[in-house]
Amino acid sequence: MHLSTDPYKGVRDFYPHDQAILHYLFSTYRRVCEQFGYEEYNASLLEPTALYLAKSSQEIVSEQTYSFKDRGEREVTLRPEMTPTLARMVAAQRRELVFPLRWYSIPNVFRYEKPQRGRLREHWQLNVDLFGGDTTQADAEIITLAYSLLHAFGAKDSDFEIRVNDRKNMPNDPALLRLLDRKAKMSREDFEREATKLFPNKKELEMFLNGTYTENQELRTLITTLSTRGITNVRYTPDVVRGFDYYSGMVFEVFDTDPKNPRALFGGGRYDNLLDVFGVEKIPAVGFGAGDVTMRDFLETHNLLPAHLWPHYSPVTKIMLCAVDTLDITMNSVATLAGMLRERGIPVAVDFSGKKIGDQIRNADRRGIPYVIVIGDTEHASGKFKIKNLASGEEIEVASADAIATIVAH
Amino acid sequence: MHLSTDPYKGVRDFYPHDQAILHYLFSTYRRVCEQFGYEEYNASLLEPTALYLAKSSQEIVSEQTYSFKDRGEREVTLRPEMTPTLARMVAAQRRELVFPLRWYSIPNVFRYEKPQRGRLREHWQLNVDLFGGDTTQADAEIITLAYSLLHAFGAKDSDFEIRVNDRKNMPNDPALLRLLDRKAKMSREDFEREATKLFPNKKELEMFLNGTYTENQELRTLITTLSTRGITNVRYTPDVVRGFDYYSGMVFEVFDTDPKNPRALFGGGRYDNLLDVFGVEKIPAVGFGAGDVTMRDFLETHNLLPAHLWPHYSPVTKIMLCAVDTLDITMNSVATLAGMLRERGIPVAVDFSGKKIGDQIRNADRRGIPYVIVIGDTEHASGKFKIKNLASGEEIEVASADAIATIVAH
Repeated sequence: MHLSTDPYKGVRDFYPHDQAILHYLFSTYRRVCEQFGYEEYNASLLEPTALYLAKSSQEIVSEQTYSFKDRGEREVTLRPEMTPTLARMVAAQRRELVFPLRWYSIPNVFRYEKPQRGRLREHWQLNVDLFGGDTTQADAEIITLAYSLLHAFGAKDSDFEIRVNDRKNMPNDPALLRLLDRKAKMSREDFEREATKLFPNKKELEMFLNGTYTENQELRTLITTLSTRGITNVRYTPDVVRGFDYYSGMVFEVFDTDPKNPRALFGGGRYDNLLDVFGVEKIPAVGFGAGDVTMRDFLETHNLLPAHLWPHYSPVTKIMLCAVDTLDITMNSVATLAGMLRERGIPVAVDFSGKKIGDQIRNADRRGIPYVIVIGDTEHASGKFKIKNLASGEEIEVASADAIATIVAH
Repeated sequence: MHLSTDPYKGVRDFYPHDQAILHYLFSTYRRVCEQFGYEEYNASLLEPTALYLAKSSQEIVSEQTYSFKDRGEREVTLRPEMTPTLARMVAAQRRELVFPLRWYSIPNVFRYEKPQRGRLREHWQLNVDLFGGDTTQADAEIITLAYSLLHAFGAKDSDFEIRVNDRKNMPNDPALLRLLDRKAKMSREDFEREATKLFPNKKELEMFLNGTYTENQELRTLITTLSTRGITNVRYTPDVVRGFDYYSGMVFEVFDTDPKNPRALFGGGRYDNLLDVFGVEKIPAVGFGAGDVTMRDFLETHNLLPAHLWPHYSPVTKIMLCAVDTLDITMNSVATLAGMLRERGIPVAVDFSGKKIGDQIRNADRRGIPYVIVIGDTEHASGKFKIKNLASGEEIEVASADAIATIVAH
């Protein structure tokens, strides 16, 4: 009986092509966050289960998380989201940290749920948070950062819409908020049936269904501020509530405007009371989380992935050095040239298989490596190499690692 | 009763300073691996427990790993090492992949053990592997990469030694190999007592204690090859066996030569039979794994961390823009300048607190941000700004984002 090569149910293997796309997401996240003065933090995905019981129900923890007892009888949970960990870390060091705090992280988070499109058991989620600013300026900065992130990926204003609301405008009823949060994914009929259950009183039901909520002054100021700064695809949307109970003010969702795929890409909001559970003083906070699955879908749908990643993938390796034989003198000569090129920052792989040169070149081409250099006696003796561009077929004779570096840099 | 702010036992929180050091390790790993033509892969840390039972014992799995049953009664384990996952992925796609395969990954791995220096319950481990090359050239490449990695961190040849051995030279007795693996950490007396238990026969014990193992021809060729290529701190060391049972040929350990801290930094070796458990054809492989805790210790001990990370940490943020008041016109002016600088790739934070300018500047300085620009009516009206270098106290008047970019780039 042989072992299966399948991964565990509901999680993904990242082969180099998928990992390169993930790395592209992450490095874009990093660049944009750092340009806004945000610093990266991280933590273990193992957390005491008590951290989630405090703000969620026992039911959610036991039905939707990976929780188990460790061998020391400690209750431990694989984090389902990063915000409680962040709150814990901020609370722990609140005396030493300088506020406002601008922090980001790219953790993996876990949900025990039925695997389905965009809802895996594990995904990677950018988290961006600003602690210690309770003004419109802080809310505007977080939304500007989310907007700039999509622009950094090449999205246009018309590709997405930022929908904002304020929890302070909404009924403080978790069941009602959860229903609103699901509204976009439900039929009108299902929505009305569920609403009827929540409002036995007919008049209140009518008010709810007709959307009697209105924009408050803070939201108007926020939308005007963003508009003045050139961010005009922001719209007040009373349906936006976000799933978590801890939001206490502005909430927002970034929506894909593609008619074939109209859905929330990611979102966030203000949560001013999350540190209460640690028994420390309040620190106002605003932030968002963005998952890798929906982000990649968005980039694919709008054809925004860079050409070296999509639809085909080219590795970062620039040159394959092909040895004509496996003699020590040849191999050492190849290794010397490889070392010189690497010192110049050029990614170089070596083919030491001893196969026919034609096969070695085909192999390099199949991998998407753009250049090859064949090395044998002549090259070793003369110190001159021919570098071949596999796309154009052009060959150029070069006599130094610097000359090679110049060619592959173009 | 308030929640504790402590992390789960035996794992670490990465505040920005620690995370910046981790990021420095990871980006150096990436750069070196990619210069050798290695591509990044990744996978979930959740794996079917069966993956580890195949090559380890039930005892190891149940005593030294995090294993539990999920809600669907599947046995799942938090990976204790990456190699079984890698073998699974390679076996799954062996028909599509182009060999030799050069892959690296930087996963977190989990061990359920007593927390102690350098042996946490979770750590991050660079894994570098070459599949499909069973020659001295492949072994030499892996060791050259390990050597180049330490040089990329600024280490000198005298800071470390590469100790090599060959499993084919050693008795194929797991108990004996485990004893040899622990030898460096034991007193001579303890070692002899344990050895006596394993060799009831006096003559065999003598032979074992006197180290009758000798370098084979393959190891001699490997050491000569590396030496010819300028890597001369490689030494045949019969004690080096490595912990895992799956090694089948060359094994190596990189040793810190610091007399205060003489210990293995990391290591690896050849494992040609790991794909057997999947019932697929053999693919020879060689690789190594390097943990973040020992690597950071090494860099600290040898004073190799860059100045912006050690002993004090400077964030990547280059400029703090300080607003003299909280009027909309001022805030929008600050936001406009921030946007222009960010478009030029400059990391900029905004102080919108409305505090006294002196306090804002002190705050920027405390964070280690090198430049400040104060913005008020005058600046808004004239479009001219004064940029102040907090280290030198020097102030320069500038009239464009480009001019600011030029100053902070130096």
